[in-house]
Amino acid sequence: MKCFMDKDFLLDTQTAEKLFHEYAENMPICDYHCHLSPKEIYENKPPQNITELWLSGDHYKWRAMRSCGIDEKYCTGDATAKEKFEKFGYALQYCIGNPLYHWAHIELQRYFGIDTPLNAKTAGEIFDRANEAIEKGDFRPQSLITKSNVKVVCTTDDPIDDLKYHKLLKDVSDFDCKVLPSFRPDKALNAHLDGFADYINTLSEVSGVEIKDYKDVITALLNRVDYFHSVGCRISDQAFDYPPYAVADDEEIEEIFSRAMNGEKISLCDCDKYRTPILIALGKKYHELDWAMEIHIGAMRNNNTLMFNKIGADTGFDSVGDCEIAQPLSRFLDALNKDDKLPKTILFNLNDKDNTVLGTMLGNFQSADAESKIQFGPAWWFLDTMDGMINQMKTLGNLGVLGKFVGMETDSRSFTSYGRHEYFRRIMCALIGRWVEDGWYAYDEGILKEIVQGISYYNAIKYFNFE
Amino acid sequence: MKCFMDKDFLLDTQTAEKLFHEYAENMPICDYHCHLSPKEIYENKPPQNITELWLSGDHYKWRAMRSCGIDEKYCTGDATAKEKFEKFGYALQYCIGNPLYHWAHIELQRYFGIDTPLNAKTAGEIFDRANEAIEKGDFRPQSLITKSNVKVVCTTDDPIDDLKYHKLLKDVSDFDCKVLPSFRPDKALNAHLDGFADYINTLSEVSGVEIKDYKDVITALLNRVDYFHSVGCRISDQAFDYPPYAVADDEEIEEIFSRAMNGEKISLCDCDKYRTPILIALGKKYHELDWAMEIHIGAMRNNNTLMFNKIGADTGFDSVGDCEIAQPLSRFLDALNKDDKLPKTILFNLNDKDNTVLGTMLGNFQSADAESKIQFGPAWWFLDTMDGMINQMKTLGNLGVLGKFVGMETDSRSFTSYGRHEYFRRIMCALIGRWVEDGWYAYDEGILKEIVQGISYYNAIKYFNFE
Amino acid sequence: MKCFMDKDFLLDTQTAEKLFHEYAENMPICDYHCHLSPKEIYENKPPQNITELWLSGDHYKWRAMRSCGIDEKYCTGDATAKEKFEKFGYALQYCIGNPLYHWAHIELQRYFGIDTPLNAKTAGEIFDRANEAIEKGDFRPQSLITKSNVKVVCTTDDPIDDLKYHKLLKDVSDFDCKVLPSFRPDKALNAHLDGFADYINTLSEVSGVEIKDYKDVITALLNRVDYFHSVGCRISDQAFDYPPYAVADDEEIEEIFSRAMNGEKISLCDCDKYRTPILIALGKKYHELDWAMEIHIGAMRNNNTLMFNKIGADTGFDSVGDCEIAQPLSRFLDALNKDDKLPKTILFNLNDKDNTVLGTMLGNFQSADAESKIQFGPAWWFLDTMDGMINQMKTLGNLGVLGKFVGMETDSRSFTSYGRHEYFRRIMCALIGRWVEDGWYAYDEGILKEIVQGISYYNAIKYFNFE
Repeated sequence: MKCFMDKDFLLDTQTAEKLFHEYAENMPICDYHCHLSPKEIYENKPPQNITELWLSGDHYKWRAMRSCGIDEKYCTGDATAKEKFEKFGYALQYCIGNPLYHWAHIELQRYFGIDTPLNAKTAGEIFDRANEAIEKGDFRPQSLITKSNVKVVCTTDDPIDDLKYHKLLKDVSDFDCKVLPSFRPDKALNAHLDGFADYINTLSEVSGVEIKDYKDVITALLNRVDYFHSVGCRISDQAFDYPPYAVADDEEIEEIFSRAMNGEKISLCDCDKYRTPILIALGKKYHELDWAMEIHIGAMRNNNTLMFNKIGADTGFDSVGDCEIAQPLSRFLDALNKDDKLPKTILFNLNDKDNTVLGTMLGNFQSADAESKIQFGPAWWFLDTMDGMINQMKTLGNLGVLGKFVGMETDSRSFTSYGRHEYFRRIMCALIGRWVEDGWYAYDEGILKEIVQGISYYNAIKYFNFE
Repeated sequence: MKCFMDKDFLLDTQTAEKLFHEYAENMPICDYHCHLSPKEIYENKPPQNITELWLSGDHYKWRAMRSCGIDEKYCTGDATAKEKFEKFGYALQYCIGNPLYHWAHIELQRYFGIDTPLNAKTAGEIFDRANEAIEKGDFRPQSLITKSNVKVVCTTDDPIDDLKYHKLLKDVSDFDCKVLPSFRPDKALNAHLDGFADYINTLSEVSGVEIKDYKDVITALLNRVDYFHSVGCRISDQAFDYPPYAVADDEEIEEIFSRAMNGEKISLCDCDKYRTPILIALGKKYHELDWAMEIHIGAMRNNNTLMFNKIGADTGFDSVGDCEIAQPLSRFLDALNKDDKLPKTILFNLNDKDNTVLGTMLGNFQSADAESKIQFGPAWWFLDTMDGMINQMKTLGNLGVLGKFVGMETDSRSFTSYGRHEYFRRIMCALIGRWVEDGWYAYDEGILKEIVQGISYYNAIKYFNFE
Repeated sequence: MKCFMDKDFLLDTQTAEKLFHEYAENMPICDYHCHLSPKEIYENKPPQNITELWLSGDHYKWRAMRSCGIDEKYCTGDATAKEKFEKFGYALQYCIGNPLYHWAHIELQRYFGIDTPLNAKTAGEIFDRANEAIEKGDFRPQSLITKSNVKVVCTTDDPIDDLKYHKLLKDVSDFDCKVLPSFRPDKALNAHLDGFADYINTLSEVSGVEIKDYKDVITALLNRVDYFHSVGCRISDQAFDYPPYAVADDEEIEEIFSRAMNGEKISLCDCDKYRTPILIALGKKYHELDWAMEIHIGAMRNNNTLMFNKIGADTGFDSVGDCEIAQPLSRFLDALNKDDKLPKTILFNLNDKDNTVLGTMLGNFQSADAESKIQFGPAWWFLDTMDGMINQMKTLGNLGVLGKFVGMETDSRSFTSYGRHEYFRRIMCALIGRWVEDGWYAYDEGILKEIVQGISYYNAIKYFNFE
């Protein structure tokens, strides 16, 4: 029996051990997509205790707890920090096969120096030891980022954001990590959702563009893209249930936009007609500025109305959709590409049934603009599991060029989640190591080093022009 | 080379062996979903021979035989018992990689004491030896159930059933197994299928409720739910091609119902409008009585018109559909949950492309009502294979809480199919044992025992309140 | 560490080694579906160099190169043969996990006697050595086919083809391989695509049938089926984004056909109404002649308009679609089967999300007409990878009868691609060998030999009546 999560955790061949320890382990991190708060990074306050650090905002953990029948009081409610942590410890022992189990133990080991497995019996003791570590050590955001060897963090930001903290962070001394914004225009695109008109009015104010029709929305957004660019943004992010693509004439789009601005309910089909030309205009702008365009496909959000009314969005009530995506995604990308205006693009899917569609969609639009200009995004959110990562890498290996993969991001809201890069690198080295040991790929240390370090760090840095 | 299907079959680590032999193997069985006939259990007649036991009603075996080009005469036709068994033996030798191969050999070993591999050459000899065992031993249904250590059997019953045999079985002495009905209202819901009006008229008679409109259908069904509850029923079962969810006003629904009662052909879309409010009313009733609601999604039935006209339904001409399910399933569950009336629910899929959708749907509606109130049903029917079970458990492990899983049921029509629980437990112990041996989950014998015995038996007993 | 791609490549158990080397390795090849040119086979010209052999028509390789950011000049452009080969060598070293990597090395070893791994550093040397081998050896098409022990090649041919080269090839001496046409009527079915009317006019000429309505299209096609049959054709091939099935009355179909013949744009929905009765008429004809009907489902072609306008179709800009297929495929097969006119059928999917649908669809229509009359086609095109093949065989094992599988075809345009049969056989023997060594399938050498040789060669020969 192998030791529990020791230094060779997941590394099941000698080649895997060598690749990880010699080449991957000490690479810096380029966390090109996350949901960290630049304000929190800038303010740099230490957490009160491990419950604040782990359980104050982590919907993964709340879902696991609710799945064990634990009352909401211990998730988002008013139980004490210790009670919450103990309930989490109870839940975790049943999470066999869940990445939470590995994430939690990697974090306990790396940040707190605690090797004890967390379960119902040990939770009380671990709570105390972790808090002692927090008290004695330095768990402020900037320290955690620095300790984790993170060189770039790309946050997720609304076009109306003033990016104040990104600017302030440029001048912080002793903090050697670029914190860059990403441009996420979802709210300007979702004309079918509540709050759209208010949002557009705010966008008008912030951009200084009077918005009378949908073309003004484009002008305002392009204006904000320029502003984001000036603050260092090089990535945009779009999230869709399914890739929208519907062609309509101007008149119809204006009529849809008018109705939406009047607060009328817009059908999804009409919304697609509205957002298609905006997305195309944005895509062309990204191409012009050499940004990368991320497309996150397949989340189905806010499924539980009862809980949404109680505690709002992003609290653990989202799941995976199953729409058809191949045709509209192809048409959208081609609409940009046929004018030679397709930016670098990263395609993420939340439903693994779409792996083969995305893995082959890439190849339709590759070009000499960049190495693997169209990327298959790493396993994300619900797929950010060992199986999910292996499937994503095997799919990319089978259908594209794994050696040019830009690798992992955390997609996280927590400052101790950089262990997910370590977890990813171990899995990647195990996969590649196994292929080499089985005689499926020629052993050539130089080439293997380049591939492993590339996927760990350099490919992303090069792809995004971050150096 | 490991011995063929010996006592350590499938157990590929020492931990797996230990978990299975010490904790899983001797657990009783709670078979919470099957298609056994309560009449046959009550009448308790011995089979004439192994062909009657194995081949008189098993569409899995007929499909395998037809796939080898074997004439229907040897499947459902008038060939002799020996001829049929020999043809099956021939087919089985080509079924490499098929669960039938394992099921058959487990049954031969456990019930007949026969270790010889079944193939074309050995079929004749095995036919004779098995029949000798039947003659000398006790192969009556109650004995087979008792030998298999089954404590609960939940059959599948129509709302119009009088449950006579379930009642009679309560007073049978020397038979220590609860045989409980499950409530399956499909025929009252499928207004688009032939025979609907006749069925509703019978339901009216049986329930004593005069049915003039669709609300009377609800009244009649709720009446039957109460009756089923009085006989010990605690589970309902719904089977759908896809989860129906369509909101319409009363007037439209009544008009659809009228047309259906007049024998007109109803579109699927209209049928969904009719059955949605009925399903919601039933769901609320299940919640009130603390029943569990099973939803089986994705079968596409009676594809072969030629054979359907010759030998009817459930004869091996069903397959797997591929409809989109995420959105309507979410809306249906939310419609119950928003009034806090969602019962315990078990979601089963027949197409493994839906694993991720279901595995994440669970988390949307978990609550303190029960441990894993929303369950991901075990791999079912066509997915009831080694790969299917492993994928279901890995999906649940990755996306939910595997340690709270209610585990296996047979879904079977045969009294020797309890070997499927053994098969499942071996696979479950191999999976967990491997994770522990690889250092992916901390070795703690108490916790592992609780998880393994929980998934084998206790979780189901607790979930359904069967003790 | 195992040696790199040596004689036991992929064979990870003793049983696998035995099965491969004793039974599979030396079996002849029945390549029942490919895109070789009968003209090239007949003309039998040697290639100029390895670049011509490998890179002049292989969209797999171009895609890999473009994915590495290599300019089109080195793919389909005017770079020198050596430059192109060196760029390919560079790309290949990043193709870890890609079947191209294995295909290339198998071909280098078997046809060129070169064991050196191909990468950026070795490409120049390998280019020279390979060209030397070409110069000294015999790399003409007929020699390569003969060396590869290929007994049957089925090409892919249009109904309007005169099959001149197939006829000429019958009389070539010293060439012991049947080169048979396959009937691919796609152009006569795709009324929604450009060029349809012109095609129908040519079909009219070639068949001698005056085409005034869609029934004349059927007459003309059946006429060509008879002609193809006379030249030895026994297989038809249909390629669909999704299986079309739409019932309409004659009048509507004629109106659709008229519009298409007038050059109007036809909707997909209308096209389905047009092609459904044609497909049914063809299916009945195939049944009458005991042909096998191949159905290839799920390609999404010509996604990149920019490149299509530059270099045309089949150049590496296709990908995988994700339409629903279960319902229309079932209805189409049943439409033939209900009159007992369903021919032998092979179902191929390009999206592995459809594995379970196809794996269970088979069982709906099996009969005594043939052993596994309805076949699950081998992993094809984008799925022709190690994972794709394993998944296809496991699916067939789980849901059908693997022992009656007709096995591999190359689907290739290249004369050195027969290594794909070797690759398939190694994977198949590894899979079966593992099952046997793990005690999951009884060791019986005679039965295993029959299964392995059957899947390698005999099952196909028997299924297609090629002896």
